Amino acid sequence: MVKKLTPMSEDFNQWYTDIIQEAQLADYSPVKGTMVIRPYGYALWENIQSYLDKRFKDTGHQNAYFPLFIPKSFIEKEAEHVEGFSPELATVTHAGGKKLEEPLIVRPTSETIVNHMFSKWIKSHRDLPMLINQWANVVRWEMRTRLFLRTSEFLWQEGHTAHQTKDEATKEALQMLDIYEEFTEKIAAVKVIKGTKSEIEKFAGAKVTYSIEAMMLDKKALQAGTSHELGQNFSKAFEIQYSDENNNLAHPFQTSWGVSTRLIGMIIMAHGDDQGLKLPPAIAPTQVVIIPIIPKNADSEKILKLANQIKERLSDLRVHLDDREEVSPGFKFNEWELKGVPIRLELGPKDIENNSVVVARRDIENSKTSIPINTLDTEITSLLDTIQNEMLKVSEQFLTDNTSHAESMDELLKQLQDSDGFVSCYWSESKEDELHVKEQTKATIRCYPLEHTGEMFSVNKPEIQGKFAIFSKSY
Amino acid sequence: MVKKLTPMSEDFNQWYTDIIQEAQLADYSPVKGTMVIRPYGYALWENIQSYLDKRFKDTGHQNAYFPLFIPKSFIEKEAEHVEGFSPELATVTHAGGKKLEEPLIVRPTSETIVNHMFSKWIKSHRDLPMLINQWANVVRWEMRTRLFLRTSEFLWQEGHTAHQTKDEATKEALQMLDIYEEFTEKIAAVKVIKGTKSEIEKFAGAKVTYSIEAMMLDKKALQAGTSHELGQNFSKAFEIQYSDENNNLAHPFQTSWGVSTRLIGMIIMAHGDDQGLKLPPAIAPTQVVIIPIIPKNADSEKILKLANQIKERLSDLRVHLDDREEVSPGFKFNEWELKGVPIRLELGPKDIENNSVVVARRDIENSKTSIPINTLDTEITSLLDTIQNEMLKVSEQFLTDNTSHAESMDELLKQLQDSDGFVSCYWSESKEDELHVKEQTKATIRCYPLEHTGEMFSVNKPEIQGKFAIFSKSY
Repeated sequence: MVKKLTPMSEDFNQWYTDIIQEAQLADYSPVKGTMVIRPYGYALWENIQSYLDKRFKDTGHQNAYFPLFIPKSFIEKEAEHVEGFSPELATVTHAGGKKLEEPLIVRPTSETIVNHMFSKWIKSHRDLPMLINQWANVVRWEMRTRLFLRTSEFLWQEGHTAHQTKDEATKEALQMLDIYEEFTEKIAAVKVIKGTKSEIEKFAGAKVTYSIEAMMLDKKALQAGTSHELGQNFSKAFEIQYSDENNNLAHPFQTSWGVSTRLIGMIIMAHGDDQGLKLPPAIAPTQVVIIPIIPKNADSEKILKLANQIKERLSDLRVHLDDREEVSPGFKFNEWELKGVPIRLELGPKDIENNSVVVARRDIENSKTSIPINTLDTEITSLLDTIQNEMLKVSEQFLTDNTSHAESMDELLKQLQDSDGFVSCYWSESKEDELHVKEQTKATIRCYPLEHTGEMFSVNKPEIQGKFAIFSKSY
Repeated sequence: MVKKLTPMSEDFNQWYTDIIQEAQLADYSPVKGTMVIRPYGYALWENIQSYLDKRFKDTGHQNAYFPLFIPKSFIEKEAEHVEGFSPELATVTHAGGKKLEEPLIVRPTSETIVNHMFSKWIKSHRDLPMLINQWANVVRWEMRTRLFLRTSEFLWQEGHTAHQTKDEATKEALQMLDIYEEFTEKIAAVKVIKGTKSEIEKFAGAKVTYSIEAMMLDKKALQAGTSHELGQNFSKAFEIQYSDENNNLAHPFQTSWGVSTRLIGMIIMAHGDDQGLKLPPAIAPTQVVIIPIIPKNADSEKILKLANQIKERLSDLRVHLDDREEVSPGFKFNEWELKGVPIRLELGPKDIENNSVVVARRDIENSKTSIPINTLDTEITSLLDTIQNEMLKVSEQFLTDNTSHAESMDELLKQLQDSDGFVSCYWSESKEDELHVKEQTKATIRCYPLEHTGEMFSVNKPEIQGKFAIFSKSY
């Protein structure tokens, strides 16, 4: 049942695909480019949702739901927006047995329909700020797809807000970026770099796009979330106007921001190894698995009874007792390692004699220790915290170790060609040069980091003027 | 801001539409037949989801996500299924700038794609039962739409399960029906009748369809949820086979079951009055609203301070302090009545003097009482329970009061023509007669109740043989 995964070092992409299949996170669907999210993968998405949804509400946002179908004419109202999304649109032409008068677009994102509604709902400064979020599916017809990272349909949340001033909108966009960073670091244990996108890479219709960029174990970048300042682009295109305190009409300033099921891909690729997933405790559907070891002639009833008692004592955690009889403990070890469960408890006759239980950590190798049963609850809770923190530190160290600095265009090209990883430099913001680097190395500007002090970017500011940038190949 | 609603007695449908607009539950979208669920309506949906999702998981189901798009050929595999859904399908013909080789159907329900995947996942009896649920949007192109009740796109959950035996499948279908009943009665405070649908009314592709039927305040029926025994129809059409304990191949027996955002329509129409919504406490986004009454020259700071203290003391509940200065207490009373908040607390200088607070119930008229502040928490918690229970009793009584019994076809037709409400009878199960009744009265068999003892159906079994049935006009 547990097949050997392709080793990461041999073929990272195949390793990624193998894990998803073998750990039953997702499966290919009969419609090209789409996927089925299986229960184990969906449980990760539910944990992502539950953390973020709470944080969105804490910060004053309310959930709503907008239609899947958008009139074609709406998509065309904001010039950059339609240009960016046109190649990826799926179109409904027939419904209810008839050809539609105007084709309907399956939403690739909802700025247009949301802002159409905002123009009905926003009349006065008292209606602002309007802070809306939606959990939904979206469709972007992609040529080259990869499970979780790039599929024709994916699940996401999209925030849409309207504010009186540009400053408020900036603050909102940055606040949501901070919440995304908080999630990736605190919950997914993945260090990210916050920054702004280059003109070439920004969202179609935005004034400024902020993103968080993470480094995967193959040293490529993954854009894990984005937050956009839309300025008045959409409020003008959709004629959203409110009367301010002095009864003057004005267009609000807006933001939008989103993360998707792509985060599941990030968690897989930021932490796994050749045995499978390594899930941070805060997001793991199962945090602790208990495996009874029952040799022939052993008192199985006694062992199972104690195993159940331990399960009961750990019931504040997400704990699972694997008491299947038809498979061996070794088989179970492999399966739960594949599934990335942070802590495994082994319980056999000797452990019972010693009033202890064997504890194995998934995040580090050869970590078996023995813990007295009477202190188990506190020890396990504290060990989960330790694992969570150490996984983030490992991610942080990996990012630092694989980020270099280039002092010239030649150095930049050479470093990007010679090895994967992030390369920082001071950048002229020339679009031409940016496209040249992409052509030569396939790397793009991941972002202009908002902060670049600290060890990761310990560079001397060179003579050349420019904006501090991170280049990398990416997903 | 708070407009007068059309009185219920004058035009029930307009009253319904007015409430939805004025209480900002939903809005019309620019795409005909679709709706925008606004935050207040979506909060109701979140409370529905949170209760049901927990109960699904308690009973061993796992969430997953299947693609929005279904190949046209899949829909055609189960003969009755395609016949039932064909007129309502929306079709994607173009994507990514190209015409698709095979058109894609936007899912009207997911039996076909789910069972295609089940055929890959189910190999052995160890894989059974398979218990899957999905929260998703679906599209059924309807000619005549009504907000929440019948829209071209709606949100729902759909359960899909596979079992070794027919008995297990029956048990599952009935278990889910019971959970739906538990929700409508315990949480939505709406009495329902559980039963089986007639052959004419059952789900396209099912062997048996069970439903729960509620009575709205205009005495029409609303089908609030359905649970289907699919037999082996889909497992044969999609070639799902497992090897049983003796290594023989067999097709599993299946169920599917669903409830949708239609439940929000039910809650509106089962409880409201001419002032607006009446929300049962268990589902109300706001359970208690505190309104400070601050006359001119009163010590506003003192009143607001106490209002905040009361809010703090009630923080285990969903409580809101309406401290807006720009609108009057009277305006607030109307607005929160419109929004159906179960309990209103009024707090003015006299109340403070008396160390008490005025409590008004939304569910009954002229209910103002005064409660000492020092016992407020326990009194309010207990009052919310009382309201919840009494709202269900009122719903139950209304159903009883508006259900009559017919002893002959003539009586049945006359009663259905003369007045709205449910009419029970012993029915021959003749399809021809069923269609005749529909033609003459617009009423259909809502269900053959599973139980028909008790006050509601206090009838003597007549000489005529037949199956006990409930007829009614319906949404």
